[in-house]
Amino acid sequence: MKLSQWGELKLVDHIRRRFASAGPYLAAGIGDDAAVLKSAIHHKSGKDLLWTTDVLVEGVDFELAYCPLHQIGYKALAANLSDIAAMGGIPRFFLVALGLSRDLTVRQLDLLYEGMMDLAHEFEVKLSGGDISAVQGPIFIAMTVLGETERGRALMRSGAKPGDQIFVSGTLGDAAAGLEVAKLGLRMSTSRLLLLQRQFYPVPRVKEGRLLSMRHLVSAMIDLSDGLASDLRRVCEESNVGAVVEADAVPMSPLLIQYTRQKRGNPLDYALKGGEDFELLLTVPQAKINPLIRLMKEKRLRLTQIGQILPKTSGLRLKKTNGKTVAFPKRGYEHFA
Amino acid sequence: MKLSQWGELKLVDHIRRRFASAGPYLAAGIGDDAAVLKSAIHHKSGKDLLWTTDVLVEGVDFELAYCPLHQIGYKALAANLSDIAAMGGIPRFFLVALGLSRDLTVRQLDLLYEGMMDLAHEFEVKLSGGDISAVQGPIFIAMTVLGETERGRALMRSGAKPGDQIFVSGTLGDAAAGLEVAKLGLRMSTSRLLLLQRQFYPVPRVKEGRLLSMRHLVSAMIDLSDGLASDLRRVCEESNVGAVVEADAVPMSPLLIQYTRQKRGNPLDYALKGGEDFELLLTVPQAKINPLIRLMKEKRLRLTQIGQILPKTSGLRLKKTNGKTVAFPKRGYEHFA
Repeated sequence: MKLSQWGELKLVDHIRRRFASAGPYLAAGIGDDAAVLKSAIHHKSGKDLLWTTDVLVEGVDFELAYCPLHQIGYKALAANLSDIAAMGGIPRFFLVALGLSRDLTVRQLDLLYEGMMDLAHEFEVKLSGGDISAVQGPIFIAMTVLGETERGRALMRSGAKPGDQIFVSGTLGDAAAGLEVAKLGLRMSTSRLLLLQRQFYPVPRVKEGRLLSMRHLVSAMIDLSDGLASDLRRVCEESNVGAVVEADAVPMSPLLIQYTRQKRGNPLDYALKGGEDFELLLTVPQAKINPLIRLMKEKRLRLTQIGQILPKTSGLRLKKTNGKTVAFPKRGYEHFA
Repeated sequence: MKLSQWGELKLVDHIRRRFASAGPYLAAGIGDDAAVLKSAIHHKSGKDLLWTTDVLVEGVDFELAYCPLHQIGYKALAANLSDIAAMGGIPRFFLVALGLSRDLTVRQLDLLYEGMMDLAHEFEVKLSGGDISAVQGPIFIAMTVLGETERGRALMRSGAKPGDQIFVSGTLGDAAAGLEVAKLGLRMSTSRLLLLQRQFYPVPRVKEGRLLSMRHLVSAMIDLSDGLASDLRRVCEESNVGAVVEADAVPMSPLLIQYTRQKRGNPLDYALKGGEDFELLLTVPQAKINPLIRLMKEKRLRLTQIGQILPKTSGLRLKKTNGKTVAFPKRGYEHFA
């Protein structure tokens, strides 16, 4: 059986079942945005540790032909900060493991680090070490972020209950359109540049995640790294529930609408299947909706209700404009598929 | 300026000077075996966090042609545990970032993880997550380990003082000979299998590191991952001192002596320049020598005194059997060189 016949999610599930550690010190391990480490190291501090790793590989996650190294460094860190954001945590430290070509210049290496550090300064995350290896082949960057949250308060993927409302932050699909702009080398316009910006320099929703976590409003949360179709499915699997999403409610930017009109494409395809928006998807119990709306007004938090959690037997459905419901689209990007 | 013109150490130094974070929460960052994270997360716990990352790349750090995947998994974790050992810490958790080929089988993936888990169980380290990417090109494994030590007690590379005695654990050079046995596909004998074992399944010196740390005997410590020639040089640079090593005192196994006699090679070359022994190198103040000798007897700790720390002006010297001193050999393996 080859890895390509299984696909990423089945692989991760397999690894979790066979090899995951459990114990009183590990509140959550494989299968959430970040691992939650309890008490072992800091039992008197009232905090849990969060840590996560993400790897970006040339030819899979980026192409040197159209991705500036500054952008690759930035985004590697952004993807990790987004995982901490999805747990409602505060990122603190990061480590960088690099596989680099001998032909890279020191200036290029500096650009890679400058991209990281620009974002690191913004979120006050400290570079605290790493490892560098020379590779003959695709270069890669594997980053690890350590963060913290109040004891027992990390927001898991597994807490959604039937009746909870589903929200997302920001707008969806812009990053996927931006990737197309970059890949196809489309002629630039202001709106295309803005889409490219969303692909190249996504803003991890750390502040939003903290606000939501501190107000106790959320039953489950995940970041949209692989697209709504994949990531909502993950929440449903981990929470053992179903869900319905209303197509008309999915927030999309005027930029995306304009871009897909020119291309005669369907913006909803980008919003549902496109990855790397790094927005948050969260579920909110009915009783917390009013406090959430107050928080949104108070903090100018942009969240949109897109559907609700159903019992598992209802499956995962999309309610279209004409009122009919259909099966939710297949997953977004998947390694090994 | 290309990375290959600078070499790994100069690169790391450059990154440290340009990009390293500092602050009250980061006791030690780039440039030691592991970063030491103070108080930020666990200020009431009396502990410091240690964390470290190591990356192994196909074609550089291992070859699938002669390295079983079980061994690669084992060694990736061993290299990281060795870094925690060199700080005198206890490893607790690990994360695994993988870049794998689609053609790998699930059985091969399992072997990789089984290698890790065999060692993880032995040292009670918990697998707590990771990330997997498909790569077209060399596969790689980037691992991060989180550990802990008593507050303010991590053993740095920077604490060596003139007059301190230099010790190493175990014997040196076996792993380099084992690599040759594997690479050249030499006919196996019992002694060659044992050398291969030292290359494939090194034992990280976690217990030894803990003993030395808890007894307050050590002024500086590092693990021998790149070879004595590189790693002693690192201690001297970080501590701003010189050193002399007595060639006759360097501990070498009968296996290595026998192997190099057959090959008409010089065992000292393997012991000084060969990497991946994952033994500890430590410096001990004169006043602590007697307590150290008692500890060695009490705990059956195998340490050998190989030289002493000198003022920086003395440089880094090797005292040969004939009594003459010469410049210490150049560094061992180096990426980008």
